[in-house]
Amino acid sequence: MQLARVVGTVVSTVKEPRMRELKLQVLRLLDENGRATGAYQVAVDAVGAGQGDVVLFAGGSSARQTGLTDGKPTDATIMAIVDSWDVHGKVVWSAAAETPS
Amino acid sequence: MQLARVVGTVVSTVKEPRMRELKLQVLRLLDENGRATGAYQVAVDAVGAGQGDVVLFAGGSSARQTGLTDGKPTDATIMAIVDSWDVHGKVVWSAAAETPS
Amino acid sequence: MQLARVVGTVVSTVKEPRMRELKLQVLRLLDENGRATGAYQVAVDAVGAGQGDVVLFAGGSSARQTGLTDGKPTDATIMAIVDSWDVHGKVVWSAAAETPS
Amino acid sequence: MQLARVVGTVVSTVKEPRMRELKLQVLRLLDENGRATGAYQVAVDAVGAGQGDVVLFAGGSSARQTGLTDGKPTDATIMAIVDSWDVHGKVVWSAAAETPS
Amino acid sequence: MQLARVVGTVVSTVKEPRMRELKLQVLRLLDENGRATGAYQVAVDAVGAGQGDVVLFAGGSSARQTGLTDGKPTDATIMAIVDSWDVHGKVVWSAAAETPS
Repeated sequence: MQLARVVGTVVSTVKEPRMRELKLQVLRLLDENGRATGAYQVAVDAVGAGQGDVVLFAGGSSARQTGLTDGKPTDATIMAIVDSWDVHGKVVWSAAAETPS
Repeated sequence: MQLARVVGTVVSTVKEPRMRELKLQVLRLLDENGRATGAYQVAVDAVGAGQGDVVLFAGGSSARQTGLTDGKPTDATIMAIVDSWDVHGKVVWSAAAETPS
Repeated sequence: MQLARVVGTVVSTVKEPRMRELKLQVLRLLDENGRATGAYQVAVDAVGAGQGDVVLFAGGSSARQTGLTDGKPTDATIMAIVDSWDVHGKVVWSAAAETPS
Repeated sequence: MQLARVVGTVVSTVKEPRMRELKLQVLRLLDENGRATGAYQVAVDAVGAGQGDVVLFAGGSSARQTGLTDGKPTDATIMAIVDSWDVHGKVVWSAAAETPS
Repeated sequence: MQLARVVGTVVSTVKEPRMRELKLQVLRLLDENGRATGAYQVAVDAVGAGQGDVVLFAGGSSARQTGLTDGKPTDATIMAIVDSWDVHGKVVWSAAAETPS
């Protein structure tokens, strides 16, 4: 899986019938340090992620292994919202640190 | 999924029997800002996209999860025509803005 | 799918039993303008393509969706011989124009 | 499969139900000489690897071919802890040499 | 499929039970001219290839379409030992020319 941030939404009226009702989100991929890599994905959201959330998505046939996406023509699905991650014992990024409460 | 623009068509008389009757379209891949990346795909069209349309396509085994492409040797299928997309709340591209009516 | 030209053949005596009788061809990948990209694939030929032909091939599990390759360990299969393709209404390449008759 | 080192962990409270109880680890990919390539993966761990371990992971649908990950939306799974590897008869890397006992 | 040379072996004591008894080989990928590309794969060997052999391997789900690897978490499997290949009618590489007899 790769880390990414939800930055937008794709609107489509004409789509494959199996894709109806599925929200299509624009993801900016992040590297292990939390920086944007320049790559993006349009992904189906299986977990209710919102604009600005950092998420994990799965690609390929694994994108269809959720209750929402089974048998549907998606090759990228958000399957987790990330709270934080650490590298070598130090927190690289955390949602708590980013969002002032 | 990746964003792309339909720019052409591939003509083939000799093809795998399962591919008969399927239209093969040339797609130029777009980045999240709507600019051509330099990459392309030849894709089967499952939604009736036309020349110049901006579309989403799915790759790998997900390209076979449509009524049209089930069990067929395609690894790229157009599964949505894009009306618009936004990033950080601003519309990056919209079909309405591009086509004068 | 990607466009490619058949440029050679791989000879193998010791191979997985399921691969017996399958011809292995060397493909040079082409970009949308018909120029070699520098990448190659070794592919199984499901349509009787010959040396010099421009073809389409499918990768991944889609390479197994032909009568010839079902259940076999190939990840690249030629599934169409290309007659021509166009971009923005102009023919980019055609077999007829290339081969003097 | 690719070689990688376990360097961290991803924490996620909201995730696809099928991913519950699965530990998500941050992997730094290694080249054949044992050097970091700059790429990373977030992978499910099927073998009990720990921080600092060098491992092999499988991607795509192969990531689901373990007892732990069957039918789950992971596209990267650690399926072996590496003791050592050699190239041209010389040991490139070994766990024994790295960890003073 | 891609061409590669067997250059080494990975030793692993702790691995997914389904991977037991499978030999893991280090492959250096070759381009169509027989030169190393700098990329590598760790692959399961389904055909008894030895150190120094030039082989073909299949990736993704196709790596599981052999009697040895069915249902196992490998995403790269050697499915042929290469005797030779030619491009534009000239032999690029042959095992016979490389190994003095």
